[in-house]
Amino acid sequence: MRTLELRDGIVRMIDQRRLPQELVYVEIRDYPTVARSIKEMWVRGAPAIGAAGGFGLALAAMASHATTREDFVRDLEHAGQDLYETRPTAVNLGWAIQRILKKVRASNLPVKDLRDLVVAEAQQIAEEDIATNEKMARFGAALIQDGDTIIHHCNTGPLATVDVGTALGCIIEAHRQGKKIHVLVDETRPRLQGARLTAWELMQYGVPMTLIADNAGGHYLYRGLATKVFFGADRVASNGDVANKIGSYKLAVVAHENNVPVYSVMPTTTIDMTLASGREIPIEERGADEVTTIEGVRFAPQGVRVGNPAFDVTPNKYLTAIVTERGVVYPPFQENLQRVMDPVEG
Amino acid sequence: MRTLELRDGIVRMIDQRRLPQELVYVEIRDYPTVARSIKEMWVRGAPAIGAAGGFGLALAAMASHATTREDFVRDLEHAGQDLYETRPTAVNLGWAIQRILKKVRASNLPVKDLRDLVVAEAQQIAEEDIATNEKMARFGAALIQDGDTIIHHCNTGPLATVDVGTALGCIIEAHRQGKKIHVLVDETRPRLQGARLTAWELMQYGVPMTLIADNAGGHYLYRGLATKVFFGADRVASNGDVANKIGSYKLAVVAHENNVPVYSVMPTTTIDMTLASGREIPIEERGADEVTTIEGVRFAPQGVRVGNPAFDVTPNKYLTAIVTERGVVYPPFQENLQRVMDPVEG
Repeated sequence: MRTLELRDGIVRMIDQRRLPQELVYVEIRDYPTVARSIKEMWVRGAPAIGAAGGFGLALAAMASHATTREDFVRDLEHAGQDLYETRPTAVNLGWAIQRILKKVRASNLPVKDLRDLVVAEAQQIAEEDIATNEKMARFGAALIQDGDTIIHHCNTGPLATVDVGTALGCIIEAHRQGKKIHVLVDETRPRLQGARLTAWELMQYGVPMTLIADNAGGHYLYRGLATKVFFGADRVASNGDVANKIGSYKLAVVAHENNVPVYSVMPTTTIDMTLASGREIPIEERGADEVTTIEGVRFAPQGVRVGNPAFDVTPNKYLTAIVTERGVVYPPFQENLQRVMDPVEG
Repeated sequence: MRTLELRDGIVRMIDQRRLPQELVYVEIRDYPTVARSIKEMWVRGAPAIGAAGGFGLALAAMASHATTREDFVRDLEHAGQDLYETRPTAVNLGWAIQRILKKVRASNLPVKDLRDLVVAEAQQIAEEDIATNEKMARFGAALIQDGDTIIHHCNTGPLATVDVGTALGCIIEAHRQGKKIHVLVDETRPRLQGARLTAWELMQYGVPMTLIADNAGGHYLYRGLATKVFFGADRVASNGDVANKIGSYKLAVVAHENNVPVYSVMPTTTIDMTLASGREIPIEERGADEVTTIEGVRFAPQGVRVGNPAFDVTPNKYLTAIVTERGVVYPPFQENLQRVMDPVEG
């Protein structure tokens, strides 16, 4: 299931707003529409947004009428700015745009070849995401045993990436390997990514699953009916504290209390070694409508005050291990993350 | 705010299905409509349902054309059966109906006086609920200090009872006493009683509050932004294990982990000394629609499998104290609950 791709000058992506009711692919031919697709969340999930930003730049490069290097770079920078402003807190978006701009600025190729360079680099970003996720999936799947029932929070499947996914990628890979598993899918209030996307993805892959309200996870853990917890990460500090979708912290604490292993899965690009701990990670506060309404239908009182932190921090002591494309990292995280981030050259 | 009352032969109740959009009182003149109001949840909350059952029997008594004791008792038993079958797992409903039937069977009064006896007993049940709740509210309010930010789960306010409420009654009483407090209202998925009812009630009473997704509670606890947790109870075992709305357990564990006190508030009628522990409390599994839809809007995939346990059990070790109308009970709960349930006569 390829979330988005660039082929023959056209970006083709799943319109995730229509899921799970229908699977619709949209074809995009210009970068302003790519910008709109990011802003309006036709595409979401950090790695997928990064790839979309790269593809947006590729469309801009192809459309540029510039005949000089300077004009071409100016066109690209302008498009990059428009794309970046759609979701400025998405780290991967800025990273992908900067990576391509840097490549162009460093090149001495003539303008017509610069166009190909941008397209190639955008494709490279997407392909690297898939390759990274496939490695993570294999490392993570090795942690899953026959008979496991896994609680999964939010959406970390193919739809959150270019393909394969992160935490859900591990689960799908374990199923593909023939392990008999069951997934308890947290609906993940307030945006319900679990109910809308993760449940749908697991059904597509035929992975046995049960959708639950986030509140129910504790019951299953307490009764011994859940044996593993898997979730992704939005940002990881150097000590292994993990910022992830709101509710990950509650889930991890209660799993830990019941001696159930907790795994957080992310590419090493999500790990920020400049942060001493999770306390330094700013928490985005989102709009009230996510909490008070569903599909525009309001169920909370008019005028109610709402708190809507989008993420929380799970301190490292509640994590059994961190899964990256370079391997599984166990405590002490500070030391072992350092080793993974700066591999000693052979 | 009186949730329901019986006056001049008419049962008047708030139609809670219309909240929080509008405050509508319905007037009911016959017991089959009372039965319908319970079944369709115009009225909900254990003590309120008990009182409604009693009022239903009172309407049945007034409507009975019986001229003999035997016929009158038969009419009452028939009505009692109809009322009871609306929500057979509601302990208070069966209890209220049996209490009235027992009173009638034990009486030697003539039929016309039996009618008054039923009405008086039904009124007595409602008045006792209010008196009990007022005592609990005062005991619980004493545990709340100026400056507290309290996380509250589900709905335990006036609307869940005849008036005053249980856990929320303590919070409203603390506010009434002039304590400066703030309430973080768990929306309480899947039925959203917190978002629909608790938020509305607190706004009516002018208690400062913020509505949050249940997932967000952990973030506030971890950041030191919540200082107390209050919730009610559906059933309490002799060792102090508390069965309550799904999600109470997760909340209590995470509060405990952050050294935040957790209080469960209930009348002593909710405590079942025949149960050795919470493991013996059966957990009701409810329909899938509560999880897959909100306000009739479906957001989960068609055909998805759903788990929907309505309650979970919070083991006694996560509770700081249990608040009843007879006082605040601290650990060791086994011993101290016994003392409260069987008070030594002076």
